[in-house]
Amino acid sequence: MVVADAKVEPELGGDFSAASEALLNALGNKVVMSAAICAQHANITTYLPNEPPDAVVYANDTRDVQTVVGICREFGVPLIPFGTGTSLEGHVNAPYGGISLDLSRMDRILAVHADDLDCVIEPGVTRKRLNENLRDQGLFFPIDPGADASLGGMVSTRASGTNAVRYGTMKDNVLALKVVLPNGDVITTARRARKTSAGYDLTRLFVGAEGTLGVITEITLRLYGIPETIVAGVCPFPTIRDACDTVIETIQSGVPVARIELLDEVQVRASNGYAKLGLPETPHLFLEFHGTPAGAREQAERFAEIAAAHSAGAFVSADRPEDRNRLWQARHDAYWSVLPLRPGAKAVATDVCVPLSRLADCVMETKRDIEEMGLIAPIVGHVGDGNFHTTLMVDVADPADTAKAKLFMARMVERAIAMDGTCTGEHGVGQGKMKYLAAEHGAATLDAMRTLKRAFDPQNIMNPGKIVAV
Amino acid sequence: MVVADAKVEPELGGDFSAASEALLNALGNKVVMSAAICAQHANITTYLPNEPPDAVVYANDTRDVQTVVGICREFGVPLIPFGTGTSLEGHVNAPYGGISLDLSRMDRILAVHADDLDCVIEPGVTRKRLNENLRDQGLFFPIDPGADASLGGMVSTRASGTNAVRYGTMKDNVLALKVVLPNGDVITTARRARKTSAGYDLTRLFVGAEGTLGVITEITLRLYGIPETIVAGVCPFPTIRDACDTVIETIQSGVPVARIELLDEVQVRASNGYAKLGLPETPHLFLEFHGTPAGAREQAERFAEIAAAHSAGAFVSADRPEDRNRLWQARHDAYWSVLPLRPGAKAVATDVCVPLSRLADCVMETKRDIEEMGLIAPIVGHVGDGNFHTTLMVDVADPADTAKAKLFMARMVERAIAMDGTCTGEHGVGQGKMKYLAAEHGAATLDAMRTLKRAFDPQNIMNPGKIVAV
Repeated sequence: MVVADAKVEPELGGDFSAASEALLNALGNKVVMSAAICAQHANITTYLPNEPPDAVVYANDTRDVQTVVGICREFGVPLIPFGTGTSLEGHVNAPYGGISLDLSRMDRILAVHADDLDCVIEPGVTRKRLNENLRDQGLFFPIDPGADASLGGMVSTRASGTNAVRYGTMKDNVLALKVVLPNGDVITTARRARKTSAGYDLTRLFVGAEGTLGVITEITLRLYGIPETIVAGVCPFPTIRDACDTVIETIQSGVPVARIELLDEVQVRASNGYAKLGLPETPHLFLEFHGTPAGAREQAERFAEIAAAHSAGAFVSADRPEDRNRLWQARHDAYWSVLPLRPGAKAVATDVCVPLSRLADCVMETKRDIEEMGLIAPIVGHVGDGNFHTTLMVDVADPADTAKAKLFMARMVERAIAMDGTCTGEHGVGQGKMKYLAAEHGAATLDAMRTLKRAFDPQNIMNPGKIVAV
Repeated sequence: MVVADAKVEPELGGDFSAASEALLNALGNKVVMSAAICAQHANITTYLPNEPPDAVVYANDTRDVQTVVGICREFGVPLIPFGTGTSLEGHVNAPYGGISLDLSRMDRILAVHADDLDCVIEPGVTRKRLNENLRDQGLFFPIDPGADASLGGMVSTRASGTNAVRYGTMKDNVLALKVVLPNGDVITTARRARKTSAGYDLTRLFVGAEGTLGVITEITLRLYGIPETIVAGVCPFPTIRDACDTVIETIQSGVPVARIELLDEVQVRASNGYAKLGLPETPHLFLEFHGTPAGAREQAERFAEIAAAHSAGAFVSADRPEDRNRLWQARHDAYWSVLPLRPGAKAVATDVCVPLSRLADCVMETKRDIEEMGLIAPIVGHVGDGNFHTTLMVDVADPADTAKAKLFMARMVERAIAMDGTCTGEHGVGQGKMKYLAAEHGAATLDAMRTLKRAFDPQNIMNPGKIVAV
């Protein structure tokens, strides 16, 4: 029985009214159709339009997820997994309507295996809550995108953040996933061993798949011991290039820096205003070193020597935990700090990633573009991996301003791709960056991605209109 | 035109005579059909039977590979990529005949980007030659399976080795791959940026796929700066459990140990005999620490304190490079060292991997089994990751001895899986471990792996009869 619903395109949207009836029968008040709740479950973070789903379903467990997947499959209705809604490229929009499957109630920490340095959690656990729960066991999970995202969302966008240069990205820190596939099967991609060669890497298939291949309902993560000693600090540079050259030499010399973050002079000014940092308004690196007491100190000294050879000012360390926290809070508050730069505008964050040797060129050409186009766009970067962000202040109500912002972002991506880089280092594709994948990967690679999508989701019910949009 | 060839099963082996005619026309003397060459290109490392291909083709470049893939597709003939033939589970056997595609002549180092800490190579480059080429630039590639394997083979089996505890496995160190797909498309899975969220992780799809999804013709690898200071050494323990508990505490305390290798007392005795190490014949850890001078020393001290609390003897460091090299050469020569333990027998290596907390139990129960079954089987392990090997001395000419060895290996795998571990940490599945995948992963997960295989290789020409054997 296929009855077209007025709100959705029949070919892609399926029979929503029949699906909603079945959902209400099966899940009762876990199904919510209020317009406000639906709008909150679509894109709210960027210039992309808000495209709400037809209904939101709150899942309590894997069984609920199976029920929803089964009904969406039966009636051909789109299904969009939802964590905290902090993604930046329209990942949670519902361009063809359908169901937003809210996993925030699946927030149990199922097991912490301290001796094995791993834990098993549900996808709705957020990174801050996870770390609060781990702290008294001397453990932590290092991946920290700016927002307090859900771990399910972080898996799905292949998130990273400030610690990735030392601890890797989500790709490197997920041991196993439980996933409900579009065909209704519940699979576990791997066991708890820290490494395996036992067949295809299904774990990495779902890391970064943005909910287009299945719904993650359980995550096994690698954990780390909290380092004995943490040395943090800041270091000013006369130019972006000096800072970038210092980064390259530090990484190349094998200093296992835990964080090495670039803030351009515009961002430093903004952070000075927001967090009262009192820093000179030139490009800075914010750094952190983890290790034994002498080891961490020696890393910091080695960095300071390299920096001095690149005309840096003094490395000022933040030794007390409260000073260190203040520093990183300021870094994580970059988004908030820029809002006063253009009152009323929206802060639209975008990222690219290039090989290290091209970083200085890419950042400097991007800054020239910002200046020439008359934009306000501070730059911050996880520069140890060649990854940086611009935070564009856009008046989204003004079509001309939005068009200029889009042009700027397209040029930034083209520049990164021309330097053998990628259109996104950690934000993901969603809707916003689909248009760049052909230029980045080529037609045959995109075809291979489509082959994957079709093989696992032949009906195209899982988060349709994202990544490869078959 | 499909004409059955006597040597191969027509359904699975395709039309070999037509394929060989086409190959000879296209590639001339790159096609070799001598029985001796064919036998060398099948399994020669274990108790598994040698199942030679019908022909060997030596590829010079990606174009040759495309030609071979095209002809194999046209005539439905199996195609088995071949590097150095050092894999341990029958990966290169040709159970349905067909073509062994020898990639050893594709051994060019195409680019070393020292500033980016990456390189681009062909799949026939071996790990030792790569490191010889990198050394004078102060760089190295850390992954070191015992054999001097080709990088293409190491990608395909998701290899690791002694450094994985610090530097990860092949999964963590491949940035991009060029692959000829069964449909003839040549794809590049990613660009050279150190991280990306731009779509599905096709790179990890081919890492560990054992040549069943396509032929790798180019590899972009992450490189590392050679550490300023390397401290290596050995430490004796009264029992396996004391050694394992020391490993857990060392990892948990965040000491970034670069190598932490277990040798049981049987292996120590064998290595003493082979390499004149003169060690006390008790379980040992062999260790290495990388860092700044004080940092590496402090790591070693921290380890020694932890070890002392677990009844260890003194940590004896090997400070001179020649002593350090002798130590690791002895570790890598474990295979050769055990041959005198049972003259005439074959050394059959197998591996499992379990969560760290189960390592001592798993190793000790395995040792009990060795004793009770009257086997000779020294144990070595990359224990920082919970991964260990037995080297079984098997008289492969004696069916009873082979049967006993197989029973022992099956029990070792069952034990690992019961402890939430995997049937192989780094050797791969090949033919030898296919029978364990259902127990390890469950039927639905195996189905998902088969979905992948069918999507990319619907004709089942790529290394058929391996991993999931659709």
